[in-house]
Amino acid sequence: MAELCVNSVLVTGANRGLGLGFVQHFLRMPNPPQWIFAGCRDPKGQRAQDLQNLASKHPNLVIIALEIADPASIKAAAAKVGERLGGSGLNLLINNAGMVKPKMLEAETLEDMTETYTTNTAGPLLMGQAFLPLLKKAAQGSPGSGLSCSKAAIVNISSIGGSIASAFGWELMQVTSYRCSKAALNMLSKCQSLAYKEHGILCVALHPGWVQTDLGSSAGHAVSQGQQNFA
Amino acid sequence: MAELCVNSVLVTGANRGLGLGFVQHFLRMPNPPQWIFAGCRDPKGQRAQDLQNLASKHPNLVIIALEIADPASIKAAAAKVGERLGGSGLNLLINNAGMVKPKMLEAETLEDMTETYTTNTAGPLLMGQAFLPLLKKAAQGSPGSGLSCSKAAIVNISSIGGSIASAFGWELMQVTSYRCSKAALNMLSKCQSLAYKEHGILCVALHPGWVQTDLGSSAGHAVSQGQQNFA
Ligand SMILES: NC(=O)c1ccc[n+]([C@@H]2O[C@H](COP(=O)([O-])OP(=O)(O)OC[C@H]3O[C@@H](n4cnc5c(N)ncnc54)[C@H](OP(=O)(O)O)[C@@H]3O)[C@@H](O)[C@H]2O)c1
Ligand SMILES: NC(=O)c1ccc[n+]([C@@H]2O[C@H](COP(=O)([O-])OP(=O)(O)OC[C@H]3O[C@@H](n4cnc5c(N)ncnc54)[C@H](OP(=O)(O)O)[C@@H]3O)[C@@H](O)[C@H]2O)c1
Repeated sequence: MAELCVNSVLVTGANRGLGLGFVQHFLRMPNPPQWIFAGCRDPKGQRAQDLQNLASKHPNLVIIALEIADPASIKAAAAKVGERLGGSGLNLLINNAGMVKPKMLEAETLEDMTETYTTNTAGPLLMGQAFLPLLKKAAQGSPGSGLSCSKAAIVNISSIGGSIASAFGWELMQVTSYRCSKAALNMLSKCQSLAYKEHGILCVALHPGWVQTDLGSSAGHAVSQGQQNFA
Repeated sequence: MAELCVNSVLVTGANRGLGLGFVQHFLRMPNPPQWIFAGCRDPKGQRAQDLQNLASKHPNLVIIALEIADPASIKAAAAKVGERLGGSGLNLLINNAGMVKPKMLEAETLEDMTETYTTNTAGPLLMGQAFLPLLKKAAQGSPGSGLSCSKAAIVNISSIGGSIASAFGWELMQVTSYRCSKAALNMLSKCQSLAYKEHGILCVALHPGWVQTDLGSSAGHAVSQGQQNFA
């Protein structure tokens, strides 16, 4: 991410795992963003301890209450971020928050399907809608043409599991509700890219690699390695 | 579909549009199935008039109450179909019922996303689960190896709209909740194919072509043409 020049970024699900890794990466950049907004469900609670420690040392890190399955929480977060940014826009929205409930196909329920889709697919859609005015503002305020993360971008953190063609042993590790939600997230990224291109906003889906987190399990790489894949 | 030899088939959303077309097609086959189960939300109501007329002439056509967004309705339907079939299995499950709410990306809501996904994606998953015992029975009872619609199969009626690569003018016709649900349905079909292969059940997703129905609008082909694409 060395060549990135991001003035402001928001990361969802930033209190642990990859999201916390992204925040740490941005803080360590030679030219760190002026504003790093770290979305998290319970900003004052024990689970946000790492973020709180970082925020006490880095005045450019702002913790924002954000439940991405709740439209009202998303709207409130967008208003707070807008306030902090004053007149300027948001360059980069990283829709990272996500969940998986590992289950065999036979055990999946309507509730699993709905909850996973709401978090992994509908959440990123609602985030894009709510932060569109700030992303537009950033695109309009950035010099040069073309699309880039330094100008205005939505990065949806997807998964290789969302690829229908993936040949990994999915027969054994059946995570149907997760795979369906990530395939749909890839489609959402396509729809966003078509709709938001005219506003100068880049929209992409990324597989971050397999990383050791609560979700990624111990089979993955350490978090710092995973970030290299994102770079 | 001339070479098809299906003993029993269930079509969801069979009271109008493509579903009704499938039923008519099966009835007109030189060797029609012994049992054609027509799933429909309101079997006794006005909207099932065409099905009722057909059923009064064709004793092999059985109308089944089926709301695919309701797990209890699905379970009850599976029990009823099992009863009718006596000891034999179900050869072919056509997950045809589907919905679309045309909207621009900016106007999509969490409710649209959830309702469309429940109907177009979770419904077919729950149908596959509930009818698995009957499909397994058909596979076990059919001679020969290999996978086929004459033995045991789940056919999920998807859409070209579920293809991320589709180059159709989706910028103008934004149907994000529909496209996401159909991309996820394609993934579900892949997951079902991986999980149910060992039971001898073929699982595929099909785009039926663009057909003149309430959902397909007047831009499509007449229903009888559309069916040719399915054949
Ligand atoms: N790790 C991997 O190997 C891997 C591989 C492929 C893709 N991914 C993707 O990468 C992203 C991050 O994964 P991870 O491994 O870092 O997962 P993780 O360690 O389980 O962390 C998930 C994060 O998302 C947050 N979150 C979950 N549901 C939320 C909601 N409704 N509203 C707000 N925040 C919510 C969690 O907050 P709480 O602490 O409040 O629960 C947490 O901060 C996910 O989208 C995942 O699918 C990961
Ligand atoms: N027509 C096209 O050009 C086209 C193109 C690509 C894909 N498709 C796909 O083909 C399938 C059939 O489409 P169509 O054009 O025939 O649509 P349609 O004319 O609108 O008919 C939809 C059918 O699905 C039923 N249905 C909807 N929600 C249901 C639910 N929750 N439970 C049970 N039944 C439900 C409807 O029943 P009610 O009468 O009770 O509402 C109706 O019978 C859909 O999956 C669609 O996505 C169609």
